[in-house]
Amino acid sequence: MATGHILKSFDEDLAELRALVAQMGGLAEEAIDGAIAALANRDTEAAAAIVEGDRTLDRLEAELERQVVRLIALRAPLADDLREILAALKIAGVIERIGDYAKNIAKRVPLLLDSRGIEPLSILPAMARATAEMVHDALDAFAARDPDAALKVCAQDRVVDDFYNSLFRALLTYMMENPHTISASTHLLFIAKNLERIGDHATNIAEMVHFAATGEQVAERGRGADTLAPVAA
Amino acid sequence: MATGHILKSFDEDLAELRALVAQMGGLAEEAIDGAIAALANRDTEAAAAIVEGDRTLDRLEAELERQVVRLIALRAPLADDLREILAALKIAGVIERIGDYAKNIAKRVPLLLDSRGIEPLSILPAMARATAEMVHDALDAFAARDPDAALKVCAQDRVVDDFYNSLFRALLTYMMENPHTISASTHLLFIAKNLERIGDHATNIAEMVHFAATGEQVAERGRGADTLAPVAA
Repeated sequence: MATGHILKSFDEDLAELRALVAQMGGLAEEAIDGAIAALANRDTEAAAAIVEGDRTLDRLEAELERQVVRLIALRAPLADDLREILAALKIAGVIERIGDYAKNIAKRVPLLLDSRGIEPLSILPAMARATAEMVHDALDAFAARDPDAALKVCAQDRVVDDFYNSLFRALLTYMMENPHTISASTHLLFIAKNLERIGDHATNIAEMVHFAATGEQVAERGRGADTLAPVAA
Repeated sequence: MATGHILKSFDEDLAELRALVAQMGGLAEEAIDGAIAALANRDTEAAAAIVEGDRTLDRLEAELERQVVRLIALRAPLADDLREILAALKIAGVIERIGDYAKNIAKRVPLLLDSRGIEPLSILPAMARATAEMVHDALDAFAARDPDAALKVCAQDRVVDDFYNSLFRALLTYMMENPHTISASTHLLFIAKNLERIGDHATNIAEMVHFAATGEQVAERGRGADTLAPVAA
């Protein structure tokens, strides 16, 4: 891989870029776990810290963009390297979005302080764990440039979608039986949707990793974002 | 602007890239309008056509990515030009996402064939128009590299957020009064959320245009994505 690079430290630059992506991924994963923990514990302070912490992700993405511009302008990389640099840029953008979803979940915590009785809520932590794992595994696949690991992440999305569909139906039924919980249930529905979208974004990352490594698109599948839960009633 | 370019046709290449972005923007705007029209007319065929048509946006984004790689590899652009190329790439990514939201709205049309009685539904077309206009204006600002026009788009987001907050409250109240509409109302809530997110994405584009033209970030504002409607009850 090092052949073709005029300057020895190009690979170091690239490694730095990838380290930045990994750092962003770690923060996003923590934000997902933290937001759901804050929700479960009704901890508005922890939730506020997650909202605040999202700025770090924004800052790192901007930093990565600057590095990309510098790297391309200074090194004039060949097409293959260029594709890898642009993949890192794109993946950083997706991680930033994942952070936004986690922040959005955290922002709903203060609105859900009296949601204790809503049973479907108990499914959320498991769903969040499955989602955060997808993010983790997608970034591991990116770091290892491992197309098989990437495919496994794509397969995991089905689990997250199943969680979402179950939750959607459970919350709808719950709302009908307990109209006074409609407001809280609606926020939980949006939280479940945010997690489902995070799963889609992790899948996007995995698809990019797979494509970069093999030159082949992952076969078309029913994307979570588009899998609409059947109307429960 | 042309000074500094070694090859005369670099500007032509750049113009081609920008034309591709404009084409994508036009398609995304049509998809928003079309999805809401399909919803209003209970036209499942029109909705299916919009879902299908989203592939064109995906294809154009992939085409733009290829052009970007070719352009950078062949021309080794200077930092300023590079930033503009990367901005086009980023904006194309945002438009692709806007298309996804429009597709997501269209996918809900078959689930909402018996939503005729739900009053808050009547607000959606006006909200969709305001949103599609934001997308249109953001891309006009991009084409004209006009930071003032970009700022106006950012200001428009407030209107879309107000629509969303009104709809959120109206739908929640409606659900409580008519528990048998909970399922349909939930889908409408997600559609309103999709429109609100489209407004955020249009704002993102406008912010990028503003930054590219002035080097200054648009002042922090209460972002729509994060403006959570107060709990109505």
